Amino acid sequence: MNDIVDLLQRHRSIRQFKQEPVSEEALEAIVRSAQMASTSSNVQAYSVIAVTRAETKRALSVLAGNQRSVAECPVLLVWCADLRRNRLACEREGVEMVSDTMENFIVATVDTALAAQNAAIAAESLGLGIVYVGGLRNDLREVTRLLDVPELVYPVFGMCVGYPDHESSVRPRLPVRAVLHRESYDRAGQQEALEEYDQTTRDYYLERTKGKRATTWSQDMGEKFKRPARDYMRTYLEEQGFRFDR
Amino acid sequence: MNDIVDLLQRHRSIRQFKQEPVSEEALEAIVRSAQMASTSSNVQAYSVIAVTRAETKRALSVLAGNQRSVAECPVLLVWCADLRRNRLACEREGVEMVSDTMENFIVATVDTALAAQNAAIAAESLGLGIVYVGGLRNDLREVTRLLDVPELVYPVFGMCVGYPDHESSVRPRLPVRAVLHRESYDRAGQQEALEEYDQTTRDYYLERTKGKRATTWSQDMGEKFKRPARDYMRTYLEEQGFRFDR
Repeated sequence: MNDIVDLLQRHRSIRQFKQEPVSEEALEAIVRSAQMASTSSNVQAYSVIAVTRAETKRALSVLAGNQRSVAECPVLLVWCADLRRNRLACEREGVEMVSDTMENFIVATVDTALAAQNAAIAAESLGLGIVYVGGLRNDLREVTRLLDVPELVYPVFGMCVGYPDHESSVRPRLPVRAVLHRESYDRAGQQEALEEYDQTTRDYYLERTKGKRATTWSQDMGEKFKRPARDYMRTYLEEQGFRFDR
Repeated sequence: MNDIVDLLQRHRSIRQFKQEPVSEEALEAIVRSAQMASTSSNVQAYSVIAVTRAETKRALSVLAGNQRSVAECPVLLVWCADLRRNRLACEREGVEMVSDTMENFIVATVDTALAAQNAAIAAESLGLGIVYVGGLRNDLREVTRLLDVPELVYPVFGMCVGYPDHESSVRPRLPVRAVLHRESYDRAGQQEALEEYDQTTRDYYLERTKGKRATTWSQDMGEKFKRPARDYMRTYLEEQGFRFDR
């Protein structure tokens, strides 16, 4: 359709990187692009920590469940939801910030994700590859300690950035009709779409693993959601000063 | 730097649209691009409702605080965090989904935002303009009723899409050094950056309003955060079946 749509639709995660560093110029272009993403009422409620020190990346890699890509990428971007800067601004005006709402938590989390996705696109347009690292949420207390993350800030995810050192296949997504609803939410259409996608996923794994893996999406989701995920999160976020009372 | 970085850095919200409709082909390219964004463990925990019916857009426009762009855009995309499809998948496997964690709420909200931002970029690459509509969160109960949004789904924001019918300026963002931290979170650097940005914002408004508005970012933030924001949110989300106990 055009080069940009092509780039977006060719996205795949990159987990092995060349030694080649990411230049300051590229990093700045990436972050400036991130900053131009939309932001709720201009709050810009996020920060990004660029980690290049081998020791820190190694420690974070272990915390993220021994993901080698975190240790081996030239730069790890740690994307943080950040209401602290907004509080500093309020303090400059002598205003006590009211931030004990779910709404503010959502705004900061969404702002962070929008910025990060712009960064991902900018990076890929420069020939770099990325992978999001949700595994950083395995142990946010330790990540917070390592990166000196203050109150009203929490790391939402990491992002490895570097020049790709492998090819990687584009993973098939849900059928469009499962995700795109017309005029109102289509409850009825989901089962049929899942049926189709289960088959697609099974075929994809079969081919990719030469017959060793044959799970469907439903099986993968069953495995994933049968146990509580990262159930320290609420307590951790409260330790960071976030509140969810209303 | 390149066309894509240029596109990202030229982003500005568009609030007035030509009558020209968005073609099915364009809509599908936008949604397919959204789907190729990264997703946590392939959960793809989002849905998007494309609203084109005038009556529905009008009703949503009122709910969003009488935003004319919502009534007047050819298509309003309502981006929803959606764990319901994942539960359907679990049910197909006879698994009872455990979704009472803050973690699952974060995953669904982030997945939605990443997809939406890809959609925004795809739309802009096709010559369309967009504006995010956080105002939909003013009254999510009514939005939920209008769009028949089921349990384990919540509308995170809207997005007006259409061909731009006005020029609009690019709003200056925080200095890069406020947002980009090196190796660990830089607490000390914020005040100086805020000082600079307050001046930038003030100058921007002065010029744009021909001297009628001269607020700083800190003033804007003080105004915004002195009151609780959308404080029904926690209760609403629980009505939709989300839980935040851990």
